[in-house]
Amino acid sequence: MDAPLLAAPERLGAAAARRAIAAGSLTATALLEACLERIAARNGTVAAWASIDIKAARAQARALDAGPEQGLLHGLPFGVKDIIDTADQPAGYGSPIYTGHRPGRDGATVASPLAAGAILLGKTVTTEFANRHPGPTRNPHDVGRTPGGSSSGSAAAVGDFQVPLALGTQTGGSVLRPAAYCGVVGFKPSFQHFGNSGVRTNTEAYDTVGLMARAVEDIALLRAAVMEIPHRAPVPATAPRIAITRTAHWGDASAATQAAIAEAARAFAAAGAIVTDLDLPPEFAGLRAAHRVVCGFESVRNYADELNRSGHLVSQDFRDERASVGEVATLAQFRAAIRLGNACRARMDAIMVEQGFDALLTPSATDEAPLGLAHTGQPVFNYLWTNLAMPCITLPFVKGPNGMPIGVQLVARRHEDASLLDVAAWAERVLAG
Amino acid sequence: MDAPLLAAPERLGAAAARRAIAAGSLTATALLEACLERIAARNGTVAAWASIDIKAARAQARALDAGPEQGLLHGLPFGVKDIIDTADQPAGYGSPIYTGHRPGRDGATVASPLAAGAILLGKTVTTEFANRHPGPTRNPHDVGRTPGGSSSGSAAAVGDFQVPLALGTQTGGSVLRPAAYCGVVGFKPSFQHFGNSGVRTNTEAYDTVGLMARAVEDIALLRAAVMEIPHRAPVPATAPRIAITRTAHWGDASAATQAAIAEAARAFAAAGAIVTDLDLPPEFAGLRAAHRVVCGFESVRNYADELNRSGHLVSQDFRDERASVGEVATLAQFRAAIRLGNACRARMDAIMVEQGFDALLTPSATDEAPLGLAHTGQPVFNYLWTNLAMPCITLPFVKGPNGMPIGVQLVARRHEDASLLDVAAWAERVLAG
Repeated sequence: MDAPLLAAPERLGAAAARRAIAAGSLTATALLEACLERIAARNGTVAAWASIDIKAARAQARALDAGPEQGLLHGLPFGVKDIIDTADQPAGYGSPIYTGHRPGRDGATVASPLAAGAILLGKTVTTEFANRHPGPTRNPHDVGRTPGGSSSGSAAAVGDFQVPLALGTQTGGSVLRPAAYCGVVGFKPSFQHFGNSGVRTNTEAYDTVGLMARAVEDIALLRAAVMEIPHRAPVPATAPRIAITRTAHWGDASAATQAAIAEAARAFAAAGAIVTDLDLPPEFAGLRAAHRVVCGFESVRNYADELNRSGHLVSQDFRDERASVGEVATLAQFRAAIRLGNACRARMDAIMVEQGFDALLTPSATDEAPLGLAHTGQPVFNYLWTNLAMPCITLPFVKGPNGMPIGVQLVARRHEDASLLDVAAWAERVLAG
Repeated sequence: MDAPLLAAPERLGAAAARRAIAAGSLTATALLEACLERIAARNGTVAAWASIDIKAARAQARALDAGPEQGLLHGLPFGVKDIIDTADQPAGYGSPIYTGHRPGRDGATVASPLAAGAILLGKTVTTEFANRHPGPTRNPHDVGRTPGGSSSGSAAAVGDFQVPLALGTQTGGSVLRPAAYCGVVGFKPSFQHFGNSGVRTNTEAYDTVGLMARAVEDIALLRAAVMEIPHRAPVPATAPRIAITRTAHWGDASAATQAAIAEAARAFAAAGAIVTDLDLPPEFAGLRAAHRVVCGFESVRNYADELNRSGHLVSQDFRDERASVGEVATLAQFRAAIRLGNACRARMDAIMVEQGFDALLTPSATDEAPLGLAHTGQPVFNYLWTNLAMPCITLPFVKGPNGMPIGVQLVARRHEDASLLDVAAWAERVLAG
């Protein structure tokens, strides 16, 4: 089934490539070379990479081809958002302050995939400190448009077939939104499921490492390697119970995005799902301001060194979005914001259990990727689920009026990540319909 | 009032030293030199420091003495546990893997004190990766005994009058226990109140930067600087409502420790407090195992690089306490442990509000610091409050049968840190009798 694709192995999904390598119809070296060729052809345009170590990657591929099976990710190249430290490559965190910085150790989410046989291809472009100020990356579907952020390079590289797997991080909407804009599958786990060592701390309340790939089965594979848990391929759910959750931001969704949700809901119902609506409780309306206060309060303190000693190298975007919020936020506001989040998390747990929802269906972003590279788009359909610590996944679905990808997002109860992937595997098949 | 002490400024508390500097009766340089003399006399015995930069500290003191008032901590030297990064000194994390490592940036809790005029004197000894495997530090009250851990050097240096202020971190009992063993005031804030950037991640669920000093007013000063919030000196509480909380571990407390709690309770009642008992709800009994599972699960993944690539340099203590637990813990156990913690945190919030407790009174440690340097003592009276994200403080109180300090611990409702310091300022006065 994979054989026709072996002429273009860079287009294989991770799980498919793994099967081909296991079957002997593909080598780690051939897959890597195909990715490198694609990068060579496209990097001048898409600019997804902050650094690549071709020599090290080739040496690793040769060693894997010559040796025994190393684990779940044997021979699969992956990209790492440049806000996560790796042992052998620089870590620039999207800031000129860190030019040439070499942390010298692998973060948790890098070390475990490497131990499972993955090949570290390079660091992907992040916005400055995983916030708003953009890097040079362009959307591979239209280079006049943003790839989204802050995991810009990971989404663009995976969407452009330059690498089958990549790591991102999400504090507001930094995995799901760029994944949707670039037409890939993006997954944010439940808060605390993936180790945060080696991640440059932004806001400890919400920073969550996430995954990018081109199929749900690929996400499941990488998740198992990152978490060092037994791998189980997703088992497509049967007749899941799905709640359309429009949120207070529904009016910000474009007509095409609203139509995509409606169409997905119809398709799900037709395929046997029980589809209902969920209106969030009124107190959830406070989470937007609360999220902003906590991010600002924590961020301005976590970047005190950079602001104090290298302030001239910090962008105006960071000052406007984070520092200025954090500097005026009081401890009382910060406490109230944390308490609201705690209360809403408990309430949401109860709602999911009482109403028996397997997943919420909600937009991945407001619209197609916007024009221009100066702004990375709005995270209004993402911060809620980050704040609530819930696992979420975006699946590419339709094309918008400008021919750009529009995704749909599924969100599950906190800690029910494996069950979310089962629903997503089912939804992926239904939406491909 | 401070004048008689100026002959030995290293014995001044931080707030007293600050008043003396502001009044012109003490300079930053004189205070620093007094600390350096004390260190020179005692370091060969106590071994509290992983590194000291005398030249840089002297230059900073001279600049502060020559310039205008810089902020809350103008001219006060402080020590930083060597699990937190600083710009100008090495970061060894208590592990030979990191010999010579220089992270090059200040963590959040270092940058903010520096901006407030504090002088970074040096890095204090931590156990390996802020876990159990001890460093060379000895208890200043009896060099044949452990200073406790993991913030061993910070507690010993403050207790030995080598520095008035120091930072530690607590994941189980790593601030409160060594502070109690070394006869100092140790404070762990509510989880998430202090920025974690620059802290080598151990377990993101619980890692909390904490403070060491020799008086409650000093803790309040450093807390305000670290949090970048307005400083308010603690206002001793009036007739606080205090609940003796013996916990399931009461049987592990020595007779002297149990007597200290009883004596403190009597003193508090005599001074006007309303003192009652609190038995924790039965489900809290599961938190010990839950805490261990989460620590192991997160720790083994966060140190995957060190374990995979430098495993021969990782101690057997780390393997026994963390890696072996984390390797066998399942995701189901990890989820259940997190869920139990969430439920108990909500329950505890409710108990504190409904019963109107200002603070819980509970042992700081099981006993005096144990003999020997191979083990850093038991955290059974600490992990609960860390898990529950509650602010806690230990105050030195009596001497045990071996002449070693025994402290008492006060614990407040989550986020009521300022109120805890008000109760602690009152208790400090009452216990001084």
